[in-house]
Amino acid sequence: MSGNSIGKLFVVTTFGESHGMAIGCVVDGCPPGLQLDKADIQPDLDRRRPGQSRFTTARSEDDKVEILSGVFEGRTTGTPIALLIRNTDQRSRDYSRIKNLFRPGHADFTYQRKYGIRDYRGGGRSSSRETAARVAAGAIARKYLKQRFGVQIAGYVAKLGPISADHIDWDEIGRNPFFFPDASKIPELERYLDSLRIAGDSVGARVNVVARGVPAGLGEPVFDRLDADIAHALMSINAVRGVELGDGFACVEQTGSQHRDEIEQTSFRSNRAGGTLGGISSGQDILASIALKPTSSIRIPGKTIDVDGKPATIETYGRHDPCVGIRAVPIAEAMVALVLLDHALRDRAQNAEVPRPPQAM
Amino acid sequence: MSGNSIGKLFVVTTFGESHGMAIGCVVDGCPPGLQLDKADIQPDLDRRRPGQSRFTTARSEDDKVEILSGVFEGRTTGTPIALLIRNTDQRSRDYSRIKNLFRPGHADFTYQRKYGIRDYRGGGRSSSRETAARVAAGAIARKYLKQRFGVQIAGYVAKLGPISADHIDWDEIGRNPFFFPDASKIPELERYLDSLRIAGDSVGARVNVVARGVPAGLGEPVFDRLDADIAHALMSINAVRGVELGDGFACVEQTGSQHRDEIEQTSFRSNRAGGTLGGISSGQDILASIALKPTSSIRIPGKTIDVDGKPATIETYGRHDPCVGIRAVPIAEAMVALVLLDHALRDRAQNAEVPRPPQAM
Amino acid sequence: MSGNSIGKLFVVTTFGESHGMAIGCVVDGCPPGLQLDKADIQPDLDRRRPGQSRFTTARSEDDKVEILSGVFEGRTTGTPIALLIRNTDQRSRDYSRIKNLFRPGHADFTYQRKYGIRDYRGGGRSSSRETAARVAAGAIARKYLKQRFGVQIAGYVAKLGPISADHIDWDEIGRNPFFFPDASKIPELERYLDSLRIAGDSVGARVNVVARGVPAGLGEPVFDRLDADIAHALMSINAVRGVELGDGFACVEQTGSQHRDEIEQTSFRSNRAGGTLGGISSGQDILASIALKPTSSIRIPGKTIDVDGKPATIETYGRHDPCVGIRAVPIAEAMVALVLLDHALRDRAQNAEVPRPPQAM
Amino acid sequence: MSGNSIGKLFVVTTFGESHGMAIGCVVDGCPPGLQLDKADIQPDLDRRRPGQSRFTTARSEDDKVEILSGVFEGRTTGTPIALLIRNTDQRSRDYSRIKNLFRPGHADFTYQRKYGIRDYRGGGRSSSRETAARVAAGAIARKYLKQRFGVQIAGYVAKLGPISADHIDWDEIGRNPFFFPDASKIPELERYLDSLRIAGDSVGARVNVVARGVPAGLGEPVFDRLDADIAHALMSINAVRGVELGDGFACVEQTGSQHRDEIEQTSFRSNRAGGTLGGISSGQDILASIALKPTSSIRIPGKTIDVDGKPATIETYGRHDPCVGIRAVPIAEAMVALVLLDHALRDRAQNAEVPRPPQAM
Repeated sequence: MSGNSIGKLFVVTTFGESHGMAIGCVVDGCPPGLQLDKADIQPDLDRRRPGQSRFTTARSEDDKVEILSGVFEGRTTGTPIALLIRNTDQRSRDYSRIKNLFRPGHADFTYQRKYGIRDYRGGGRSSSRETAARVAAGAIARKYLKQRFGVQIAGYVAKLGPISADHIDWDEIGRNPFFFPDASKIPELERYLDSLRIAGDSVGARVNVVARGVPAGLGEPVFDRLDADIAHALMSINAVRGVELGDGFACVEQTGSQHRDEIEQTSFRSNRAGGTLGGISSGQDILASIALKPTSSIRIPGKTIDVDGKPATIETYGRHDPCVGIRAVPIAEAMVALVLLDHALRDRAQNAEVPRPPQAM
Repeated sequence: MSGNSIGKLFVVTTFGESHGMAIGCVVDGCPPGLQLDKADIQPDLDRRRPGQSRFTTARSEDDKVEILSGVFEGRTTGTPIALLIRNTDQRSRDYSRIKNLFRPGHADFTYQRKYGIRDYRGGGRSSSRETAARVAAGAIARKYLKQRFGVQIAGYVAKLGPISADHIDWDEIGRNPFFFPDASKIPELERYLDSLRIAGDSVGARVNVVARGVPAGLGEPVFDRLDADIAHALMSINAVRGVELGDGFACVEQTGSQHRDEIEQTSFRSNRAGGTLGGISSGQDILASIALKPTSSIRIPGKTIDVDGKPATIETYGRHDPCVGIRAVPIAEAMVALVLLDHALRDRAQNAEVPRPPQAM
Repeated sequence: MSGNSIGKLFVVTTFGESHGMAIGCVVDGCPPGLQLDKADIQPDLDRRRPGQSRFTTARSEDDKVEILSGVFEGRTTGTPIALLIRNTDQRSRDYSRIKNLFRPGHADFTYQRKYGIRDYRGGGRSSSRETAARVAAGAIARKYLKQRFGVQIAGYVAKLGPISADHIDWDEIGRNPFFFPDASKIPELERYLDSLRIAGDSVGARVNVVARGVPAGLGEPVFDRLDADIAHALMSINAVRGVELGDGFACVEQTGSQHRDEIEQTSFRSNRAGGTLGGISSGQDILASIALKPTSSIRIPGKTIDVDGKPATIETYGRHDPCVGIRAVPIAEAMVALVLLDHALRDRAQNAEVPRPPQAM
Repeated sequence: MSGNSIGKLFVVTTFGESHGMAIGCVVDGCPPGLQLDKADIQPDLDRRRPGQSRFTTARSEDDKVEILSGVFEGRTTGTPIALLIRNTDQRSRDYSRIKNLFRPGHADFTYQRKYGIRDYRGGGRSSSRETAARVAAGAIARKYLKQRFGVQIAGYVAKLGPISADHIDWDEIGRNPFFFPDASKIPELERYLDSLRIAGDSVGARVNVVARGVPAGLGEPVFDRLDADIAHALMSINAVRGVELGDGFACVEQTGSQHRDEIEQTSFRSNRAGGTLGGISSGQDILASIALKPTSSIRIPGKTIDVDGKPATIETYGRHDPCVGIRAVPIAEAMVALVLLDHALRDRAQNAEVPRPPQAM
C-alpha cells in the first residue's frame, strides 16, 4: 500500500495539501448503523483548529467538514464515508520567498529529493494541515468506540518546554487553550509562550493520551501488537520524535520486581505496562506518551542551502505556532481511536467465538 | 492482515512457538540474484542465541537455520524464501508448574483472554524465541542493503540498568557478551549482573541502533513514514516500552533554534532529527533508541491469580535472562533492516524515474 | 482491507453512492512528475457517460471531474490525488416506489442482509454510477502507461445478445454509440435494441479488451498473477459473470499440441494464452473477454418480496439501459489499466536490477 | 504485498519449488479452538496427489503433511499454523535436457525474463506442485466452514475435452479417478485418455465447484466482491484460462426477463446469478466453473528457442498429466474454501451487530 492509508479493517486514507483546494479522507470499513452527523465531527476539528488564542498560529481556517457519502438518513451504511474540508485561508504569498530554499527541520529537502517535485506552499503534503483529516476520521472512530465499548480517550499536555503539570485535573484540560491539566501553572505557561513569540523561537512538548474502558484482548501479535500499532500511529504525527507506553524509558532502570504489575483477584495492582501485555490489551488503561519537537518555522534566522546547493539564510514569517505540541492533543487522541477501533474489529473477526467475561479487570 | 507479517514489499511472516516443533519464517519479495547461503544468516542467529555467557539464559539451542526454498544454485530466485529453525531444547517440565497461573508481566493473561487457549510452555507464541525467525529474515535484508546501497546497521547497549556507556567504541561491542561499547564499564556490569542473578531479579536496558549509508528519499508519508515504521517494528519486539528517533524525549525541552539541523553545502550541521525529515530519510544516519523493560521471569515471588481467578504466588525457575536487553541488540538491528529494505523497494517502485544525486549528504 | 480499494502500490479507493452528494476516488501511489490535468480524465468519463444515444440510459449527468489534490503546477507530486464528481441529476422520486421492495437481480436484498441498512435510491453504492470514479482513476493510469511504456488499451463490444462482430475495425469502435467494431452490423444492432426498449426488456453482452505494448515480466505469482488480478478487477465490475484470458473456455476442447503458443526467434507464433505464461506477461497482447449479464431493471414485471417477506410484483420505470454491456467498455479498459500499472510498479520494486532487453517479443 | 499470500484475515502464504527441499505454507488468522490434526488435511492432499491411476502423472510423492506450529493439545491457538510437505521424488535428471530451453506454454520464458534467474527443474515455483500447499491450507478452512456454518464445497469435472457429464451423481465423483459425476461416460473417458497418452498429447477440461450453505452477506464490495475474489482465487490456479459464476457466458444471449432470479417468499426461483448479487452472497449455492487449458508438457515435439534465442525443438518426457484438469478439482475446492472463510471473517468484523435471520433462503 502506498503510505496514505492506516488501518486494516477500519481504513482511513487521507489526501490534500496545505494550499490545495481541499483536504479530506475516505473512511472504509465503518460498521453500519452508527448514527453520524457533521455535528459528531466538528467539535474535534474545532479543538484542533488554529487561531484559537494568541498563542497558536494565526491562520484562520473554518475547517468545516462535509460528509459526501456513506451516510443515509443519519446512519452509516457500511460503505465508504468521504469527508471533505475545503481550504479557505491559504495566503500563498507567505511562501513565495522560500520557494527555492530548504527550510531546516522541515521536509522540504526530503520531499524534493524523494519526488523531484514539491508543492512548496506551506509545506504542501508535509504540513500538519493534513492532520485535520485524521481528526475528522478519528471522531467517527471515537463515537463508535464509546457507544459500543464505553471507551473514552483523553489527551493532555504533560510538559511544555520546561514546565510540567504536577497533577492531573481532567476538568481543567478543556478550560484553557493549552490542554494543560494543572491550573496552577497556567500563568507561567502564558508568560513563557509570550517570551517565545517575542524571541521568535519555539519549544517542544510532551503529550499524554489515556484510553479507558478498552476491552482486554485487542492486539494482533507478533507484529501488529496493539502497542506497536499505537507507536506507529503516534509517530506518524508531524513533529513526534518519541513514543512511550506505560513507564516507557523509566523501565531502563527498573528491576523486574519493581516493574511487573502483580495481579490481584479483581484487578492489577499497578499499570507500569501501560495497558498491554505481550502486545494485547489487558483491560487496564492504555497509557501513551509522545515527545514533540519544537517547530522549525521560527523567526530566528538559520543556515540552509537553496535548491541549487548554494548557502542561504532562512527566516520564516507568517502564521506559526510557538508550540505545535498543543495542537497535537486532539490529533493524538484521534490516532489512538483509529488504532483501537481497527483492532476491535480485527479481534472480533478472528475471535468472536471465544467467551469473554464482562470487563472486570 | 493478521498480525504475523511485516512489510509491504519485502514481507516477512513468522511462525512458531517456544516449545513447538520449529520456528521459522517466509520471506516474500526478496529481489532475485542475491547470493544467499546459510552462512549469511547463521552469524546473526549466533549473536542472538542464548547460552553464550553465564549472564544470559541457560537454554541451549543450536538455532541452526535451514533454507527450504527460494534459493537456487546459491542465488535468490525472487520466490519465497522459507527459513526453518528446529527447536531442540524445550524442557517442557519447567513449565508444568505454572500451567494454571498467569505470570505477572507476561502475556499469559492476555493470550488466554484473547484466544481462549494458550500454549503455556515457555510463553508459547509470546516467547521471545520467535525473534530468532526475525533475526534470520533480517540477515537477508542486511546483506542486500549492504551490497546494493552500502547500508550498515549496528546496535549496542547504551545503558544497562543504572550503568551507562560513556563513550562509543564500535570495536568493543563485539568483544564482550553485552554488546556494550565502553570497555571501562565491563567489570562494573559483570558485578551488577551477578548480583541480580543472586537476588533472583532482573533489570531493564536501553539499546541504540544506528544505520549508516541510508539513501535519502526512503519513507512513505503520511502514515508509513520511515520513522513511524521503524517505531512500529522496534515496539513489536518483546519487552520494548519506548522508542525514540534522534533526540527523542530530549526534544521536549529544546527550543526550535536549538533543535533544527541547519544545512550546509555538503551536509547537515547536526542530527537531532535522527535521520528523517517529514518521515523521509535525509541521508543522515538513522538514530533510534529503545527502552526494554526488565523481564518478569524472576525468582522473587510475586502475587498473581490462577486461571480460576484465585490468588496465588508465582516464582519462576529455569532458564531466564537477568537482562533481556542484551539479546535485543541483534533483534533491533534486524527489525531496522527489514524496514529499510521494505522502504527501499517501495521508494523504487514509485520514484525510480526521479533523478537522484549520488549519496553526498 | 475493506473492499473499496484496489491495487497494492497504485491504490485506488472509491467512494460515493448513486444519489449521494458526490462520487469520487483517491489515487495513492501515482509516480510524481506526470503531467496531469482534468482534460486527461474527462474524455474517458464522457465515453462512459449515460445519455449519449437513445439506446442508453436517460439520466443526464455531466460527470465533470475536479482534481482536489496531488497535482501542483500541472504535474503529479507523488502525493494522493483526490478526484471528485458531483452528482447533479439524481431524481430521487424515481425510486421511492421501490423503497420497500427487493428488485430481483439487483443487490437490494444482499445489501440489506449484509448491512441491515441500505440507500435504496438508485441502488446506492451498488449502482454502476460508482464506476465513473474507477474510469477517472483509470485515465491517470492509462496516461502513465502510455507515456512510460507505450501501452495501449482498447475495448469493444464483441457480441451484443445474438449479434456478433464478424471482424474488428479499430476505427469503427469510436464512430458508433455501441463501441461495436463491425460497421456492417450496426443497423441490425439498432433495430434489435429498439425492439428491446419497446418490449421493456434487456440483453447481455460480451466485451473484449486488448492491451498492447505490455512489457514482459509483469505479474506476481503465485496468487497475484497478472491474469488472476485482471480477472479480479474485471469481475468486480457490476454485471460481469464471466472472464476469459486468451482462448478461455475454448481451451477445454483443445489438445496441448493445438493450444501451446510455440516460440520463434523473434515472436510467438500464436497467442492462445492471451498474453501471460505462469501468470506473468510475455510481451504478447493481453487478451481478456468478459460476459455481462442483462440488466434486471426492466419494465416487464417480475415476482419478488418486500422487506417484510411478503410477495410483491416489481417493475421499474425511469432511466435504464437495455444493454449495460455497452457502457462497460471504458470501465473494463480502466480496470485493466489499473491492474497493469500496479503490476508495473510492483515488478519495478523487486526486479529493477534484472537486465531487461528492449521489448522485442 | 508480494504475491505469495492470499486473503486479508485468513491469510495463506505458500512457499516452495517443485524440486526444492519442501513446499509448505503459513496460515495466519485461523480462529482459535478448532480441533485440528494432520488427519484433517491428509485426505485432501491424497485426492490431489499424483500417481493414483495410469491416467495421471507418474511422479510418486507421498505428500505427507507436518504441522509445525499453531496447534496445541489438538486445537488451533489462533497463532500461525505452518504446514510442511517434504519433496521426496524429485528426479532432477528429467529436466537437465531442457535446462536451456523455454518450453512453450510454460512459464520458463516469463520467469527468466522477470527474475533473470529460474529454477528450471520441474518448472520450479511455477510448477503445480505448489498447489499441494494450497490444498493443505484449504483443508483447514473447509473444516472450520463446515463446523461453524455448515458450508459444504464440492467440485467435479464437468467436461473433459469433448466429453461432457450429462447428469450429476454426487456419489459417483469419488468413485472414479476423474472426479467425473456421470458413470455412463467413464469407459469413453478411459479410452480417450489412453489415446492421448499414446499420441503423447493432452487435453483441457472444465471443472465446476459448488458451495452449499453459504450464509448470505459475504463479500466486500466494490472491489473485494465475493465473486471477484473467487474469480481471482480460481484464476490463480495453474492452467486456468476462464472463470464463470452462475450462467457465465450464457448470460451474453439472455434477456433480462430470462436472467433475473425472481424471489419467492422462502427462496429464489432460480440461480442464474450463481449465488451472489452485487458481489454479496445471497444464501443460494455458489456456482463457479473454470476452464483449464491442456498441459504443454507433451511428447509431441514443438518449436521454441533456447536461452540464447536460437531456434530449437522441444519434447518432454517423464511424468506428466494428459489432463491436468482432473487434479484441479481439489485445488479449486480449496481455493473457494479460502475465499469463503476469509470473507466470513471480514463480514463478521464489520457487521457482527447486524441482526441476521437464520439461513432460510
